[in-house]
Amino acid sequence: MTAKTPEQSRTIMTDLVLPSETNPLNNLFGGELLARMDRAASIAARRHSRRIVVTASVNHVAFSRAVPLGSVVTVEAKVSRAFKTSMEVFIDVWTEDRESGKRTKANEAIYTFVAVDETGNPVGVPELIPETELEQQRFIAALRRKQLSLLLAGKIKPAQASELKALFEE
Amino acid sequence: MTAKTPEQSRTIMTDLVLPSETNPLNNLFGGELLARMDRAASIAARRHSRRIVVTASVNHVAFSRAVPLGSVVTVEAKVSRAFKTSMEVFIDVWTEDRESGKRTKANEAIYTFVAVDETGNPVGVPELIPETELEQQRFIAALRRKQLSLLLAGKIKPAQASELKALFEE
Amino acid sequence: MTAKTPEQSRTIMTDLVLPSETNPLNNLFGGELLARMDRAASIAARRHSRRIVVTASVNHVAFSRAVPLGSVVTVEAKVSRAFKTSMEVFIDVWTEDRESGKRTKANEAIYTFVAVDETGNPVGVPELIPETELEQQRFIAALRRKQLSLLLAGKIKPAQASELKALFEE
Amino acid sequence: MTAKTPEQSRTIMTDLVLPSETNPLNNLFGGELLARMDRAASIAARRHSRRIVVTASVNHVAFSRAVPLGSVVTVEAKVSRAFKTSMEVFIDVWTEDRESGKRTKANEAIYTFVAVDETGNPVGVPELIPETELEQQRFIAALRRKQLSLLLAGKIKPAQASELKALFEE
Amino acid sequence: MTAKTPEQSRTIMTDLVLPSETNPLNNLFGGELLARMDRAASIAARRHSRRIVVTASVNHVAFSRAVPLGSVVTVEAKVSRAFKTSMEVFIDVWTEDRESGKRTKANEAIYTFVAVDETGNPVGVPELIPETELEQQRFIAALRRKQLSLLLAGKIKPAQASELKALFEE
Amino acid sequence: MTAKTPEQSRTIMTDLVLPSETNPLNNLFGGELLARMDRAASIAARRHSRRIVVTASVNHVAFSRAVPLGSVVTVEAKVSRAFKTSMEVFIDVWTEDRESGKRTKANEAIYTFVAVDETGNPVGVPELIPETELEQQRFIAALRRKQLSLLLAGKIKPAQASELKALFEE
Repeated sequence: MTAKTPEQSRTIMTDLVLPSETNPLNNLFGGELLARMDRAASIAARRHSRRIVVTASVNHVAFSRAVPLGSVVTVEAKVSRAFKTSMEVFIDVWTEDRESGKRTKANEAIYTFVAVDETGNPVGVPELIPETELEQQRFIAALRRKQLSLLLAGKIKPAQASELKALFEE
Repeated sequence: MTAKTPEQSRTIMTDLVLPSETNPLNNLFGGELLARMDRAASIAARRHSRRIVVTASVNHVAFSRAVPLGSVVTVEAKVSRAFKTSMEVFIDVWTEDRESGKRTKANEAIYTFVAVDETGNPVGVPELIPETELEQQRFIAALRRKQLSLLLAGKIKPAQASELKALFEE
Repeated sequence: MTAKTPEQSRTIMTDLVLPSETNPLNNLFGGELLARMDRAASIAARRHSRRIVVTASVNHVAFSRAVPLGSVVTVEAKVSRAFKTSMEVFIDVWTEDRESGKRTKANEAIYTFVAVDETGNPVGVPELIPETELEQQRFIAALRRKQLSLLLAGKIKPAQASELKALFEE
Repeated sequence: MTAKTPEQSRTIMTDLVLPSETNPLNNLFGGELLARMDRAASIAARRHSRRIVVTASVNHVAFSRAVPLGSVVTVEAKVSRAFKTSMEVFIDVWTEDRESGKRTKANEAIYTFVAVDETGNPVGVPELIPETELEQQRFIAALRRKQLSLLLAGKIKPAQASELKALFEE
Repeated sequence: MTAKTPEQSRTIMTDLVLPSETNPLNNLFGGELLARMDRAASIAARRHSRRIVVTASVNHVAFSRAVPLGSVVTVEAKVSRAFKTSMEVFIDVWTEDRESGKRTKANEAIYTFVAVDETGNPVGVPELIPETELEQQRFIAALRRKQLSLLLAGKIKPAQASELKALFEE
Repeated sequence: MTAKTPEQSRTIMTDLVLPSETNPLNNLFGGELLARMDRAASIAARRHSRRIVVTASVNHVAFSRAVPLGSVVTVEAKVSRAFKTSMEVFIDVWTEDRESGKRTKANEAIYTFVAVDETGNPVGVPELIPETELEQQRFIAALRRKQLSLLLAGKIKPAQASELKALFEE
C-alpha cells in the first residue's frame, strides 16, 4: 500500500443549517453537527483506505461557537494519522457570514475509524505522510491521543503512555 | 459592488448516498440529487451576492449516470454568469469509486437564482469575471440559455434571441 | 402495448409545507419542491409504462411564485408524450389559500423518465394519445423540447431540429 | 357559513414507499402510514373549514393489508360529518400494483379534527351535506361513532347513546 | 411460552419536539405523535413476544393536550393483554415542563399488534399477567375493546359481544 | 437551588434502528447514534438544571459494538457531575436481542452541557449528589476529565491538573 498525504483524503461538506436542525435558541443542534462531522470524516477515512470504514471512537469535541439557523457550515475532514488498521481524522468546522463572507472557526473534532472488509474484519490501511506544519503537529498529537485512549480503556499502563507522560515531565 | 470570479463562489458538498435516498434499483433518486444540487447552488449564489437567494429556474439537467447506494457524491457549484439581479450557477456532480478512488462525472445541471432583500424584493448582484477556458465557455453559453428561457416564456421574440438564432445560422 | 391517455397516468400529490422544508424567507425550498415533483412525475411515468422508471432529465423549471410555510401544495403530474423507451411528464404545481380556498398556479416543470427492466436496461413504453386541447399542445411541444435537448447535447445537428427551427422561421 | 359536500374537501396524496419507511418485513411501517393519513386528513378538514385544524382523535384504524417497499400508495381523505366545531374525516388507503396497475384497498381510518383560531380556541365549521350513497352511510355512522367516543370517555351515559344502543336492540 | 407481566414489556421513549414536527400553532403534529407511539408500542409488543410484530389496528386515540415545540415528550408503552397471536398495547404520553419539571398526561392510545414469523404468518404469543390495579383494569377493558372491534368489523354479532353488551345492561 | 441525584435526571430513549440510519454493513451509522445520544443527554441536563442547555463538548466515545438494522437501541443518560454552570452527562447505550431479550452494552459516552438563559448566557445549576457506587465512581472521574479537558485546551497547567497527575504517580 502506497503512503498517502492528508490532502489526498481531504473532504469538504458545505451545507445550510435547516430549521429542522436547530435548538430552542435557533442554533444548530450539537447532535446534528456531530452527525455531519461523522459522515464527512468517514468519507475522508474511506478515501485514505479505499475500504468500508466504521466509527471506532470520538475523541474530544468542543463546541466553541454556536451556529445559527440559515448559516452556511463547512465541515472539512482530513486523515491526521494512520495506525495499523485505524485512522485518526481531524475535522475543522467553519461558518461564514452571509454579508461579509468572513469565515469563522466554529468547532473542531477528532474521530477514529477502523477499515474493515465486507465481513466486518479489520484490514490494514496505508501509512500517512503529513506535509504542512499543522498536519505534522496533528500527526504527533495523534499518538498522544491514542495512548490516552488506551490508558483510559485500561489497555496500557500509565508507564507505557510515553508521549502522554512527557506532558507532565516538562 | 466588486466583480467576482467563479472561484470565489465555488461550493463543494461531498456526502454519502444513504439508503433512504435510493430508488428500487438502489440508485440515488433523481429528486434527492436535485435537492442536493439546489442547496449547493444556492450557497454558491449566496457567496457571489452575499444576499438571500431564491431558486428562479432549473435549466437543463441530464442524469447521465446512476449513482449507487453507498457512493460518495461530490456536488460542485460555481456561478457561471451574473445578470442584473440574477445568477446562473453551473453544477457538476461526481461520484468516486471506493476501491480505485477514480472520480466519474455523473451529472451536470444549471440553476438560476435571484438575489432578494429581507422583504423578498430583487436586488443587484456583482458582475462575474470568468477565468478558465471552461468558465469562459459557460459564461458565453449562459446568455444563449437566458435568451432561450425568455423566448420559451414568450418574453422576447425569436428575432431578439440573437445568440440562439446564430446557432441555426451557422 | 395498448396506447394510453394522459388521464390514465394522472398523479396527484397534495401535502403541507413543513417547517423543515423552508428557506430563510419562510418559503418552500426550491430543492424540496424539485424532489416532490420528481416523485409525483415518476409515479405518473410508472403508471403509463408499468415499469421501473428512472429520471433521465429535467427540462425547464420556472419557480414563478413562492410557496409559504403551512401552505397546502398540490403537485399534479401527467405523461405528456411517450417516445420509444422514454416519457415526458408535465407537472403543474398549485397552492391554495386557506381562507379563500382559491388555487393559484405556483410552478410548472417538465421531466423525462426512461422505463427500465430489473437490470436497468431501457424497455419500450405504450404510445400516448392526448385528449384535451392542453394535452395536445403539450404533446406537440414535447417533440420540440426533445429536439432542443438532442441539439444541446450535440446528438443532432441544427438542421435536423425541424420543429425547433420552424420557431425561428415564423 | 355555506354547507359543503364531501367532494369539496377531497384530498389525494399519492406517493412512493421509500426504504426509510419500512419495517423488517420490508413493508410500510404502521406509524409512517398513520402520519401520512393524519396529514391528508388534516388538509381535508382544512379545506372544509378554511381554518387551522388540530387532530382531536383517531378512531378505529385497521391495517388490513401490508404495503410493500416501492409501492405507490394513495391516501384519499374526505370530511364525512361536520359537528359544531369538529369534523370527522374518513380516509381510504389504496396501493397499486406496478405491473397490472390494479388498485387494492389497503386500509381505512377515521380521524377527528377541531377547527381553531390563531390562538387555539375552537371555532364553528360549515355543515356537511353527503351526496353519494357511501357518503350517506358514513355520515350516519359518524354519529354512532361520536356517541361511542363520548360514552367511552364517560361524558354521556349508555342510555344517551341512542344510535349505539339501537345496535344492540336489533 | 412463559407468561409475562406488563412490566417486562415496558418501553420508554423520551425525546424532544423538533421544529420539523410542528403544526402552524407550533405544537407537535398529531401524525408525528402517532408515528412515535407506533414505534414505542411495537417495541413493547416485540419485547413481549420476541417476534417481528406488525401494526394490526389503532383503537381510540384522543389528543387531549397540545405538545408545544421544544417540549420533552415521554411515550410509555406496555402490553395490556395478549390474545392468541395478537397483543393490545396501551400507550401513555407525558410532557414535562422545563421550569417546574412537572409531568402532565398529554395523550393515551391503544394499538394492536400481531406477532409474525419471517414469512409474515401469525405465530402464538405468551400470556399476559397483569399486576397493578391499573394493569388489571386495562386487561379487562381490552376484551371489551376486542369485542367492539370484531362487532364493528361484522365478524361477531351484537349478541356475542358479551362484555360490551353488559355495558348497556347496567 | 436544591441539589439533585443522578436518578432525577435519568432519561431513557428506546427506539428502533431504521433502514435510513445504517451504513454499508447494515449497522447503525456512528453519526446517527451520536445524534441520539446528544438528544438524550441534553434532556438529562435539562431535567437537572431546568434550563435551556447547549452541548459544550463531547468527551470520549468508544463504539465498542455494532448495532444492526432492526435492533432495539436504548440510550440511557444521567447527569454524572454538576459544575458551576455546566454538567457532565454519562450515557450508556444498550441493544437487545429480539429472540433472547438479552441486553448488551454497545457504547458509552460522556457529553458536557452548559445551562443558559433565554439570551444564551450561562447560568448556575444545582449540585449533584451521587448515590450508587457507579455514580460515585463517575462523579470522581468527572473531575479528572474536566482537568484533562482544561489541560488540553491550555487553560490550566499540568501542575494544576491534580486529579490527572495522581494517575501517573500511583
